[in-house]
Amino acid sequence: MALIVQKYGGTSMGTPERILNVARRVKRWHDHGHRVVVVVSAMSGETNRLLGLAKSICDNPDPRELDQMVSTGEQVTIAMLAMALRSIDVDACSYTGRQVGILTDSSFNKARIQSIDADLMHKDLNSGKVLVVAGFQGVDPEGHTTTLGRGGSDTTGVALAAALKADECQIYTDVDGVYTTDPRVAPKAKKLDRITFEEMLEMASLGSKVLQIRSVEFAGKYQVPLRVLSSFDNDTDGAFDEDFKNNVGTLITTESEHTMEQPIISGIAFNRDEAKLTIRGVPDQPGVASRILSPIGDANIEIDMIVQNIAADGTTDFTFTVNRTDFKKALNLLETIGKDIGAGQVIGDDSIVKVSIVGVGMRSHAGVASKMFTALAKDGINIQMISTSEIKISVVVDEKYLELAVRSLHTAFDLDRATGESSARA
Amino acid sequence: MALIVQKYGGTSMGTPERILNVARRVKRWHDHGHRVVVVVSAMSGETNRLLGLAKSICDNPDPRELDQMVSTGEQVTIAMLAMALRSIDVDACSYTGRQVGILTDSSFNKARIQSIDADLMHKDLNSGKVLVVAGFQGVDPEGHTTTLGRGGSDTTGVALAAALKADECQIYTDVDGVYTTDPRVAPKAKKLDRITFEEMLEMASLGSKVLQIRSVEFAGKYQVPLRVLSSFDNDTDGAFDEDFKNNVGTLITTESEHTMEQPIISGIAFNRDEAKLTIRGVPDQPGVASRILSPIGDANIEIDMIVQNIAADGTTDFTFTVNRTDFKKALNLLETIGKDIGAGQVIGDDSIVKVSIVGVGMRSHAGVASKMFTALAKDGINIQMISTSEIKISVVVDEKYLELAVRSLHTAFDLDRATGESSARA
Repeated sequence: MALIVQKYGGTSMGTPERILNVARRVKRWHDHGHRVVVVVSAMSGETNRLLGLAKSICDNPDPRELDQMVSTGEQVTIAMLAMALRSIDVDACSYTGRQVGILTDSSFNKARIQSIDADLMHKDLNSGKVLVVAGFQGVDPEGHTTTLGRGGSDTTGVALAAALKADECQIYTDVDGVYTTDPRVAPKAKKLDRITFEEMLEMASLGSKVLQIRSVEFAGKYQVPLRVLSSFDNDTDGAFDEDFKNNVGTLITTESEHTMEQPIISGIAFNRDEAKLTIRGVPDQPGVASRILSPIGDANIEIDMIVQNIAADGTTDFTFTVNRTDFKKALNLLETIGKDIGAGQVIGDDSIVKVSIVGVGMRSHAGVASKMFTALAKDGINIQMISTSEIKISVVVDEKYLELAVRSLHTAFDLDRATGESSARA
Repeated sequence: MALIVQKYGGTSMGTPERILNVARRVKRWHDHGHRVVVVVSAMSGETNRLLGLAKSICDNPDPRELDQMVSTGEQVTIAMLAMALRSIDVDACSYTGRQVGILTDSSFNKARIQSIDADLMHKDLNSGKVLVVAGFQGVDPEGHTTTLGRGGSDTTGVALAAALKADECQIYTDVDGVYTTDPRVAPKAKKLDRITFEEMLEMASLGSKVLQIRSVEFAGKYQVPLRVLSSFDNDTDGAFDEDFKNNVGTLITTESEHTMEQPIISGIAFNRDEAKLTIRGVPDQPGVASRILSPIGDANIEIDMIVQNIAADGTTDFTFTVNRTDFKKALNLLETIGKDIGAGQVIGDDSIVKVSIVGVGMRSHAGVASKMFTALAKDGINIQMISTSEIKISVVVDEKYLELAVRSLHTAFDLDRATGESSARA
């Protein structure tokens, strides 16, 4: 029998009725002899309610006190789920991050997990208990309560799975897995049965919001098999007594032998939240990139893509993208910088999107980039920027082409036909 | 400078604005060089909201999980008050019961404090910090969260004051002190400047709701000077830089030299929540009281007064009072018991009240009882039961006489004239 860590988000814990549903699901796993640790988030809306209370006291609440406060959201849901489990005869016990020995550093509001005391949990598990653990929180070496930041419950789930050497960490969400792309944009999008950690990381960082990126990194680092599946889907009923690794949700894992035959690309990600800034006629001198980007970084503006081309006249054009909310601020800064370094024109554009193809398969396939550019060209889509990594190619295009670009790439890379493992591995 | 423990209840913490008011009050004490530990309750209504969530999961929530859950109410308010204090430049830090080392037994929902780690707090206090501590909660030897039961925040306040050897424990409430009786019943009721622990215990147990009875016992046992005062009253502003022991609120303390000249009685308490049960013609045999009362106790019905008189015919009449909510249940039980022991008629009356006079002064004054009975007789009030202790005399009368009885006793014992210490000590 397996040791499973299950994580349920705020939507799954949103009402007493849903909590009872989660309890029934956990009971099924437990009844089948699996050892189960459940990690839960606060009820949806609760963290925001608490943040609102804090804001009603002062504009910049003390970070330590904020963690002391918002960590109560999960403390309520762990107790509710443990009550629900006990009411259906499952021996369950709730634990806060502190009680289960989740030690973090002291970076309040965005703490990082340093260690977990697995012995405590193994003792309970060996006595047949189901453990219900608060996500998102821990305790620092001085005994202060800390939180891991938004989405931190995913990280708690993966960290517990790693510490316990669990067979699988299951992330229950409101979608039933990871898709080749967003079905709202490309109706032919297909659910993937498997995806590698690296691909998932690229998908997540490119705007696919299924999993928190830190939890994927963590899972990759500690080789924790991670599965995304729906908490509203009851089709899993018959699966686990045979093999919980059947085709349910999407398994995020390392490349293994039987999946060597990768599809060329696994999915298409996009990001609507970017804006592009270009500074022209920059003197082509050492250190000039730093002189442009340092003031942007100092202003706490995060930069995504960076592209630099040498022009014929000994100057260079420098283009980068930022989050759209930082666009105005970055544009003003860049105009000042441009004058300082004697550059030419500064151009901004906040009506662009980034579209990316992701896949470990492209490592062993030549011509993936040209196939991508050809597909876009055929539909008359002009490419404004290109950026590549080992398993991803991103392009920036006019935002009006977003849907067209995603659909045309989805078709060009044979993702429309993908159904189940066989064809997805075409 | 003094070490003061202040306790604020749910009403004082009811809104962000009130929390800011509490912060300003604490700051004044801190600015005057006093070391301050603040104990707070959950926002009014919050504990009931949480209990409602628990009830929505199941009818009988697990007691351990209930404590895990409801203890979050105070965790939110300690953080809010600490934020508020920091926002007005007071170096404050919040602590849960667990963090400040409040060790209790494992009786979930009604745990008793076993020890408190004062060293932790002294370290913080010595560094100039204000400590904000969650009332009502602790941690058991196995690390489970516990709560002390309703009103437990008063107990936390007194226990911390005892552990820290504080100069005073101040309980801030929505009334400005302890009164000779309820002003809503007797408009001439006067605030007392001082009252002894024993008197306060009698007043509390007789239905005066200012302080939780356990906290008064605790304060008496550890000789913690306890002061009741209003959190909505700002008249204390000028007092503490001279002497915080001035005539503010009501000080509950031991009998000391300068208060040897006690008033005969300090106050009049009453309780509307009682019902009376009589069983007539009980065979006057050893063990009969136990045969009557044991089944009542086994049914978890609490008994208050008990009176037994021997009748002329070798039988006895047995009368006792219970809480009015248990009246029907007790009456049914008593009828069965009556048949079993061969007793006569069973009579119940749930339209009675208990009125009591309380005062350590009656120890050294003869004729207090006769003065009481004379006053009641003069107003035509029939006495149905009498019960006495060293510092209290209680009578049961028809509930329609409640206001009349209280006012007539208030006048008879010269309490109408009491203003301030001088006359209250008449």
